Amino acid sequence: MSVESLTERATNDSSVNGVMKALVYGGPGQRTWENKPKPTIRERGDAIVRITRSTICGTDLHILKGDVPSVTPGRILGHEGVGVIEAVGSSVTSFRAGDLVLISCITACGICDFCRRRMPSHCRTGGWILGNTIDGTQAEYVRIPHADTSLYRVSPDLDLEAVVLLSDILPTAYECGVLNGEIKPGDTVAIVGAGPIGLAALLTAQLYSPSAILMVDLDANRLKRAQEFGATSVVNSAAEDAVARVLAITEGAGVDLAIEAVGTPAAFDTCQAIVGAGGRIANIGVHGKPVQLHLEKLWDRNIALTTRLVDTVTTPLLLKLVQTGKLRPAGLVTHRFGLDDIMQAYDTFADATKTSALKVVLNGRGPN
Amino acid sequence: MSVESLTERATNDSSVNGVMKALVYGGPGQRTWENKPKPTIRERGDAIVRITRSTICGTDLHILKGDVPSVTPGRILGHEGVGVIEAVGSSVTSFRAGDLVLISCITACGICDFCRRRMPSHCRTGGWILGNTIDGTQAEYVRIPHADTSLYRVSPDLDLEAVVLLSDILPTAYECGVLNGEIKPGDTVAIVGAGPIGLAALLTAQLYSPSAILMVDLDANRLKRAQEFGATSVVNSAAEDAVARVLAITEGAGVDLAIEAVGTPAAFDTCQAIVGAGGRIANIGVHGKPVQLHLEKLWDRNIALTTRLVDTVTTPLLLKLVQTGKLRPAGLVTHRFGLDDIMQAYDTFADATKTSALKVVLNGRGPN
Amino acid sequence: MSVESLTERATNDSSVNGVMKALVYGGPGQRTWENKPKPTIRERGDAIVRITRSTICGTDLHILKGDVPSVTPGRILGHEGVGVIEAVGSSVTSFRAGDLVLISCITACGICDFCRRRMPSHCRTGGWILGNTIDGTQAEYVRIPHADTSLYRVSPDLDLEAVVLLSDILPTAYECGVLNGEIKPGDTVAIVGAGPIGLAALLTAQLYSPSAILMVDLDANRLKRAQEFGATSVVNSAAEDAVARVLAITEGAGVDLAIEAVGTPAAFDTCQAIVGAGGRIANIGVHGKPVQLHLEKLWDRNIALTTRLVDTVTTPLLLKLVQTGKLRPAGLVTHRFGLDDIMQAYDTFADATKTSALKVVLNGRGPN
Amino acid sequence: MSVESLTERATNDSSVNGVMKALVYGGPGQRTWENKPKPTIRERGDAIVRITRSTICGTDLHILKGDVPSVTPGRILGHEGVGVIEAVGSSVTSFRAGDLVLISCITACGICDFCRRRMPSHCRTGGWILGNTIDGTQAEYVRIPHADTSLYRVSPDLDLEAVVLLSDILPTAYECGVLNGEIKPGDTVAIVGAGPIGLAALLTAQLYSPSAILMVDLDANRLKRAQEFGATSVVNSAAEDAVARVLAITEGAGVDLAIEAVGTPAAFDTCQAIVGAGGRIANIGVHGKPVQLHLEKLWDRNIALTTRLVDTVTTPLLLKLVQTGKLRPAGLVTHRFGLDDIMQAYDTFADATKTSALKVVLNGRGPN
Repeated sequence: MSVESLTERATNDSSVNGVMKALVYGGPGQRTWENKPKPTIRERGDAIVRITRSTICGTDLHILKGDVPSVTPGRILGHEGVGVIEAVGSSVTSFRAGDLVLISCITACGICDFCRRRMPSHCRTGGWILGNTIDGTQAEYVRIPHADTSLYRVSPDLDLEAVVLLSDILPTAYECGVLNGEIKPGDTVAIVGAGPIGLAALLTAQLYSPSAILMVDLDANRLKRAQEFGATSVVNSAAEDAVARVLAITEGAGVDLAIEAVGTPAAFDTCQAIVGAGGRIANIGVHGKPVQLHLEKLWDRNIALTTRLVDTVTTPLLLKLVQTGKLRPAGLVTHRFGLDDIMQAYDTFADATKTSALKVVLNGRGPN
Repeated sequence: MSVESLTERATNDSSVNGVMKALVYGGPGQRTWENKPKPTIRERGDAIVRITRSTICGTDLHILKGDVPSVTPGRILGHEGVGVIEAVGSSVTSFRAGDLVLISCITACGICDFCRRRMPSHCRTGGWILGNTIDGTQAEYVRIPHADTSLYRVSPDLDLEAVVLLSDILPTAYECGVLNGEIKPGDTVAIVGAGPIGLAALLTAQLYSPSAILMVDLDANRLKRAQEFGATSVVNSAAEDAVARVLAITEGAGVDLAIEAVGTPAAFDTCQAIVGAGGRIANIGVHGKPVQLHLEKLWDRNIALTTRLVDTVTTPLLLKLVQTGKLRPAGLVTHRFGLDDIMQAYDTFADATKTSALKVVLNGRGPN
Repeated sequence: MSVESLTERATNDSSVNGVMKALVYGGPGQRTWENKPKPTIRERGDAIVRITRSTICGTDLHILKGDVPSVTPGRILGHEGVGVIEAVGSSVTSFRAGDLVLISCITACGICDFCRRRMPSHCRTGGWILGNTIDGTQAEYVRIPHADTSLYRVSPDLDLEAVVLLSDILPTAYECGVLNGEIKPGDTVAIVGAGPIGLAALLTAQLYSPSAILMVDLDANRLKRAQEFGATSVVNSAAEDAVARVLAITEGAGVDLAIEAVGTPAAFDTCQAIVGAGGRIANIGVHGKPVQLHLEKLWDRNIALTTRLVDTVTTPLLLKLVQTGKLRPAGLVTHRFGLDDIMQAYDTFADATKTSALKVVLNGRGPN
Repeated sequence: MSVESLTERATNDSSVNGVMKALVYGGPGQRTWENKPKPTIRERGDAIVRITRSTICGTDLHILKGDVPSVTPGRILGHEGVGVIEAVGSSVTSFRAGDLVLISCITACGICDFCRRRMPSHCRTGGWILGNTIDGTQAEYVRIPHADTSLYRVSPDLDLEAVVLLSDILPTAYECGVLNGEIKPGDTVAIVGAGPIGLAALLTAQLYSPSAILMVDLDANRLKRAQEFGATSVVNSAAEDAVARVLAITEGAGVDLAIEAVGTPAAFDTCQAIVGAGGRIANIGVHGKPVQLHLEKLWDRNIALTTRLVDTVTTPLLLKLVQTGKLRPAGLVTHRFGLDDIMQAYDTFADATKTSALKVVLNGRGPN
């Protein structure tokens, strides 16, 4: 499919004359689904992608609360998506128009010192920029810089609802939680927070055959899902003393790995109270405040604490695991909307306690 | 040399009739050099060692302040020492009377789950017990449980002043600072705290050829020593903003590794402010209070923070490095006293600002 | 249960007056089930174990062919077993009479330099000695030196047929094949040899969620079992060109890991021909001859080749995995005999092509 | 300095009208310094570099013997160089004309699966191509594909004779020998082969503070150089039984790491005979024949053997180490020639036994 033909076909939809619909941040508490200029190639490494699948992240809700100062009014939100390439810049060598691709939430130049260290989260000209410092994926089209190293070709035979979860949530859970947590077969793992990211950690942790996975949350419904997804124990911290319960389950030893998947001082406190000697705390949560670290108790406990913004260096691996059926994340999708109904999708996702929403998938109108 | 002959020879010294001199903790602020019963074999795995070299640790000063509740009045202090074995229990297979040995500050049973994980710091029947929950090495004789796995044979040809530093300070700096810090050639390292343990970290860090080692302290004299020991930059935090200076030296990038070698919230704060993206904070300091951890700044910085009580699993390696001249820690010894003058040695060590004391070696009266 | 009562009770069985039955090597091709003196404590660290479960290893067949010169006529064979402790030496601290234990095929002193490096396969006074340089486990009783560090307490609630496979075959497959092979989720693994050890590698490899496991063997029956145990592809090297087939399955890329589980030049050749760039060859097989290594093809392929005698340092982990149901090795047991019928058991095991035997379990007469 | 000015200035040298001088392979035994068309940009990612420093590699001698069939007559040889960028293609973002750069012997696209695995040695469109499948650096100008990920900016303040050794020999010794060999402080290392690559391994091994480095070679002069560069023992295999000597020096234990830096069956044999239990063999040598691997002796020795074509992923680190004085490779340069005298330089390098040549540096005529 050539760029030209795509452009011709486009005359029947909202992208006519370079206009498209997009979810635009208007300042704290304000979002609209409105017309915006369709993006065009600006740098030689860019690709323009027509969005066929997108989703909403907890971080988008944080942005809407005004908690992320780098996002300014007028910004199109969204950093997750699957779509079809419409055009590529002259230096792009791996992709061409018509390719079905997964968009990484992390843009990687592939050249800078951080990219060479396999840490594109801190790429000098990339990192998390989509839906943050440049326009994002909750739109009919998006411009992706450094396309060669920020997009991944996808077979149309795959379950694309599963694939769109590989933009962010799966690599985040896997890299920040499971890999940083250095899970080994037989380990005892506690995951504090059974939201989408905690459940994604639950799914990917099982790749390493831990003996026990304890799931801690306040929401009985989410804990029920956690059991369906493989948790060996669930602890409702609204109903009982979570720390006491975890220590009881582990016969006082504490856990080999505590994954913080909330982003609050309380969740972090639970983690530091349940980690066993020689254990690890892997932080996934996005924190807005400092926490108190009990070094007076932990200095001699031989623990490690890690933080990480996802690098998405494991995306090819995760795609392979989905393709071979070793990883089945599609169960995290609870709701589906047309992209045009994104305003309603946000309402559903934001009211998760009531709607039991985990991941909400947005379907674009075109093929794929 | 048999136990019997040793016992006979002993009739000429203070151990006659089973009495010896020892440094005894009497409660906060109280220490005396007094007569105590000479120790005897209690368990089949014990060894009795005549102390020929000992030293005083910063932890001993903490104990004397009353900060370590596990130490009760009447306890003989000290967890560092070199000496000659006087007797061994029936199940000891590696040592016999007359052997010159290094005493590890960590007692290891070699059997329990933690010892099998190479983490004897948390040994079920050992760990740090000498001069803590059982009598220690600041005495003419000491009983060492689990002798086969807690003592190391030493050649009398070695510089025993260097060797006694391998009881605690060198493995602590190396394991908690250098190994946990995962130093690689070319790294930029900052060590916050230029006391004996920080300087030991400085010495052992150089085994991995970092490009730069920045030393931070309040004491100009200690910073001068740090330069002599190989620091590439020194930062006097009494005279300038240490964080700003480190960031300036590293052109804003921060350090690959920050080693906390003090044990205070202020030192920890410096570490978390200077660690670069992708870097590590290795805590060595003994902390008495919680610290504030700025997860709101660090959650996306891909850092790791480690704590550790020394396991002394590297003692054979460190002995080899001393033996082959790759590690020369003897420069850390600033003062020497006879064991009988230990009260004066404590005064000297406790007043380090005035005396410029780093490590103070105590020499026993017998051979070796 | 005290040693005394055990001794009294023993008057009703063949151990009366210190005589027991044992499988004795009489030189190449010769084995007998005959009376031997019941073992007694010789060293303080010994334990005497009454065998309740044992099994026969491929290595025992090698010994019977005369291929293992360290085994001399008169030796009781066997290095695998589960049993009940009858007596312990005075320095044993972890066990007492009546304890149900797993016997490791590797005896570890826990003290020597190799044991400290977690490499007891080369223990200065242990290693593989059972059924080799000292009498082994294919007998009613066995003496185990260094009992504290060579036995593992077992709950009688476990499936003891599964547990006896943890003496040798499971840790061998896991340590030499899976851990040395550094399997990661998503990897493509080929196991050359679908005998008991290859199938044990197949079972334990799955703890790390490889995307594909290809099993290569000449025996259709064993390949059928491999499929039941989780192989994603089987290659019958009697019927087709195994190398060509593996390369076809991997689209020319070769495998991430090739496990040699036979011990022949031909099997090794297959491994070096199918390993992909950046891959690994993990040798498990016991080799009696040199092999040709094609460095002229491999020097620039960034591969690693590992060898290892099992260290059994993962035995506690494997016990935990069996206990929590993450590892189910009992399916490897195809035949069961009373210990008294061991001569017939050997016939069955030695004629595996005809009998389809994998592991043959021998049951002692007493409880457990 | 702009491309235009360079082009103007170029009217005074041999590149007038697009002609330059180059060392051209003419088939086995044949090389000429002849006129060739000056290279031009062909792909958007290309850079044209004016060579200011180059050198000759042992591999170039192999090519001249006809041992490398991928090199065809007419090819300009050379894969090492430092130079000044004359022009860049439109998609190059990191460099511009006038930049002083180090040329990596490995060309990396930065995009393919192997590059993402940090294994550009096997890059799908790169790898070792310079002076092999495309024209190389022993010329006045060279075209470098994938310039952004195959060149490294260099400060003109550096010792550029040291820098040119970072094109190949230093990263090869460091990655294939030292990193693959997993040297740790205190290790005993043997390097078989004291040619330029073996000596580079000797230099870089010292970054990790091994206790002993034994150097094995037939050439007394090279062994003398090895001692000057830090070898703790030298073994002349022409004069004594090298294996027996190494085992004697290590008191029978063998070495922790044996580095093969020759590329012959004899050198490999020495390595496998001297590696200790639990040790490693890191192959650097380019092998033209299979070797015999004594698996019948090694299967239970817990060893690892690695091969690797250099990936040059450590080039930024090595540059930093040279810049900070932690690595001083310039001593490897024994002879210097003008680029125009390259025919004589080849003669000198090829006759190393007589000339004692190690690395021979070729200096271009222009600045830098």
